[in-house]
Amino acid sequence: MPSGSFISRLADASQKNRSWLCIGLDLDPNLMPKVKPLEFGRAIIDATHDLVCAYKLNLAFYEALGIEGLTILGKLTEYIPSHIPIIGDAKRGDIGNTAKAYAKALFSTFGFDAATVNPYLGFDSVDPFISYRDKGVFVLCRTSNPGASDFQDLRSTAGFSLYEEVARKAREWNVHGNIGLVVGATYPEELRKVRSICPEMPFLIPGIGTQGGDLASAVNYGMDAKGEKGIVTVSRQIIYASKEGDFAEAARNMAERIREQINRCLAARPDTERC
Amino acid sequence: MPSGSFISRLADASQKNRSWLCIGLDLDPNLMPKVKPLEFGRAIIDATHDLVCAYKLNLAFYEALGIEGLTILGKLTEYIPSHIPIIGDAKRGDIGNTAKAYAKALFSTFGFDAATVNPYLGFDSVDPFISYRDKGVFVLCRTSNPGASDFQDLRSTAGFSLYEEVARKAREWNVHGNIGLVVGATYPEELRKVRSICPEMPFLIPGIGTQGGDLASAVNYGMDAKGEKGIVTVSRQIIYASKEGDFAEAARNMAERIREQINRCLAARPDTERC
Repeated sequence: MPSGSFISRLADASQKNRSWLCIGLDLDPNLMPKVKPLEFGRAIIDATHDLVCAYKLNLAFYEALGIEGLTILGKLTEYIPSHIPIIGDAKRGDIGNTAKAYAKALFSTFGFDAATVNPYLGFDSVDPFISYRDKGVFVLCRTSNPGASDFQDLRSTAGFSLYEEVARKAREWNVHGNIGLVVGATYPEELRKVRSICPEMPFLIPGIGTQGGDLASAVNYGMDAKGEKGIVTVSRQIIYASKEGDFAEAARNMAERIREQINRCLAARPDTERC
Repeated sequence: MPSGSFISRLADASQKNRSWLCIGLDLDPNLMPKVKPLEFGRAIIDATHDLVCAYKLNLAFYEALGIEGLTILGKLTEYIPSHIPIIGDAKRGDIGNTAKAYAKALFSTFGFDAATVNPYLGFDSVDPFISYRDKGVFVLCRTSNPGASDFQDLRSTAGFSLYEEVARKAREWNVHGNIGLVVGATYPEELRKVRSICPEMPFLIPGIGTQGGDLASAVNYGMDAKGEKGIVTVSRQIIYASKEGDFAEAARNMAERIREQINRCLAARPDTERC
């Protein structure tokens, strides 16, 4: 088990690799080159571990492969160099005693350093996760998908959208300093608003790449005032950059390109756009 | 793979067993008598399968036991008599392509007849589930836990609470007739409101028993106008009725008692309280 809190380990890995890029290891057999999933995942990690601040594994893709998939998930998390934090993207949310079992599953059984959680069930669904003080807990706030607007944009009588209410509650719940938010890059204006509510929290920012989010806006609006704590997560665009034998090299090239784009955006970030 | 839609299989099992009771097989080693989890689960199924309309397995408890737990989950779902539908209580919610992987995991890989989903991410997170037309999809609406009020009660400028907005959207999305809602028994007034929005949908009603919900209100407000489609789910109160060697017998006695209570409430249900 690695030592140190998620947030300090994230900062260390980010500094060491000069990177705010997080690669999503979403193993989808339909998109993968003709190699075994475990071999594929290991090759991607070998090719990219010096370019990332974190890896993120979305459990859906492993669960879809059944017991075999979850065995691969365990082997991949073991394979990732121990100084790189690993985020379990599970988006769990359940009532208190069940949330406790999910927190145990993600943090103890699978050994993730951080996890994503869904806020719909309120505080007692999030509390068992934040009780693991060394772990990071990313609460879904404004997600990157088209359906996000169905409920997250509903405006309350208090004048806030649901996603703003979630950001405000997350700030209130953050007594151990280990809460972060998931905010999609596909909605820059919302990202800016959320950053203004929670200026210092780490943000997990999906939506760049295949989903079409704009990288410059993600960096300008999603990073904190120091130009940190905006974890730009990219999955398909990197890991499926090639379906041929050169897939690992292609993934490395794409990861390097995106890391540099992020760093260039950070360097060019106008003071006025700092949150 | 059993044939027929979830909703017709639910009706058949309910009629055959004269029951609207669903037993939650939440295997928690801290609460279990001194037998192996698989043996425990099988003994509970042996003792209760003629008393239920469905079984529900909450994935959290199996995931907390790792690969071994998920292997047990697979063996238990195989062990349940094929005419009893099984609900995978997973509360998943993710963006489109990931939700597709979760739907595959729950319906194809694990073989559940129905699943619970979280609506926070909107339509494209629910759509891949409802595309399995023979499966049931229970959307979280008003949950049974204390934190439910944090967001689900937020009132929109349109004059509806978030949980009412969810019920209204679920009704709109229900083009294949396979959507249901999760509405806790701990909040009878909310249950009544949701039933009035969706008079014909199946409801999954947790919160009776350990959580303190009132059974009479659950039956009066949660069932449809015919006194059907209110699946009263009870877990701990039944499966941990005894921690001794008589645990299976004790579970059967408790299940029988609750089934009869539900049936008595149904028989006594005043016309005026029918929704």
